[in-house]
Amino acid sequence: MRMRKKSWAMPFIEEHPEYILQNPELNKGKWKQVLNCDILHLEIGCGKGDYFINMSIKYPNEGFVAIERDISCGAVAAKKALEQPHANNLMIIKDATELEEWFDSKEIDIIHLNFSDPWPKSGHYKRRLSYGGFLQKYKNVLSDDGEIWLKSDNKDLFEFSVCEFSKNGFIIHECSVDFRRKEQDDVITEYESKFMQLNQPIYRVVVKKK
Amino acid sequence: MRMRKKSWAMPFIEEHPEYILQNPELNKGKWKQVLNCDILHLEIGCGKGDYFINMSIKYPNEGFVAIERDISCGAVAAKKALEQPHANNLMIIKDATELEEWFDSKEIDIIHLNFSDPWPKSGHYKRRLSYGGFLQKYKNVLSDDGEIWLKSDNKDLFEFSVCEFSKNGFIIHECSVDFRRKEQDDVITEYESKFMQLNQPIYRVVVKKK
Repeated sequence: MRMRKKSWAMPFIEEHPEYILQNPELNKGKWKQVLNCDILHLEIGCGKGDYFINMSIKYPNEGFVAIERDISCGAVAAKKALEQPHANNLMIIKDATELEEWFDSKEIDIIHLNFSDPWPKSGHYKRRLSYGGFLQKYKNVLSDDGEIWLKSDNKDLFEFSVCEFSKNGFIIHECSVDFRRKEQDDVITEYESKFMQLNQPIYRVVVKKK
Repeated sequence: MRMRKKSWAMPFIEEHPEYILQNPELNKGKWKQVLNCDILHLEIGCGKGDYFINMSIKYPNEGFVAIERDISCGAVAAKKALEQPHANNLMIIKDATELEEWFDSKEIDIIHLNFSDPWPKSGHYKRRLSYGGFLQKYKNVLSDDGEIWLKSDNKDLFEFSVCEFSKNGFIIHECSVDFRRKEQDDVITEYESKFMQLNQPIYRVVVKKK
């Protein structure tokens, strides 16, 4: 969801090039070394950052890279992340379409898509982060056992995503139409908490290359 | 769902061998000829029969075979069907595990699984009609462009089914977590109508071999 533009965002981003990477391609093939981890997570569209920040705390031995293309939103996330221990995470505030320039083939273990913009107009389906064009890029940067975890409150986006994953050769290993009805192993995002308070179901799917 | 045993069921079944087939294997490879149709549907677990009976009326040029293994339930469905024009449908009151003895390879165009028994105990998962063991049989009797349409009110069965279809090489072409929110092309079953009155979502998935 769009956030009001923050005038401090761009200066803040420029002041923290060690955390908000300007040239992520320099880490290509070396992310696990840089983040000192064996398991590398990538969140695409991290919004205000609660998910990857709390996952970084929950799994301190795993590495997290978060991408957000909205400058104001990304700056809010980065500010929040920098107030926490953040040795195991980094941010990229750019458009994720360039993903394959930043990550080597098979470099990522888990890709997270949380409450992505549903782009509801049918003519905009190619902008959805679970559109086949994106999925082919994800497939390339995912390890052989790699997984994509998608969560959404949006019925249409969930239904579209399930079909896109299937048509693009991913196998659906977990599917939930009411994710929070059981205790789960991952953290709750800001959106998720809002929808849970309204008693609205959270949809979730986990897919793999095989 | 189990129905109270009906004492008239078995005599009724025996009185209508032309409609409730005792030896369905005699039609193997000839179902479209027998039902005078180009498109052959199979409903597995037809319950009290409202779905296949109303689909037969809605699509008078297509053929429908309905399987039900519960004798009382199957007899109720047959009785209802025989009170309608029924030149384009037939019933088999037997266990569907023998499916491949009755239908030739690629003979069926659309398989329907409506509100199947969810067999909720985890130890019973092999009994669910969308279990991989069954899916391999369905794949064999389905035409190359053939489809399986599954509808359920049961979250667990739906989630299980989506994963089983995907793991067994089916491609998900349609997925809905709230099927009746748009006008649809198929008919409403007795269960479906009950859940709609309770405002509970109907889950649906359509899969193909490719």
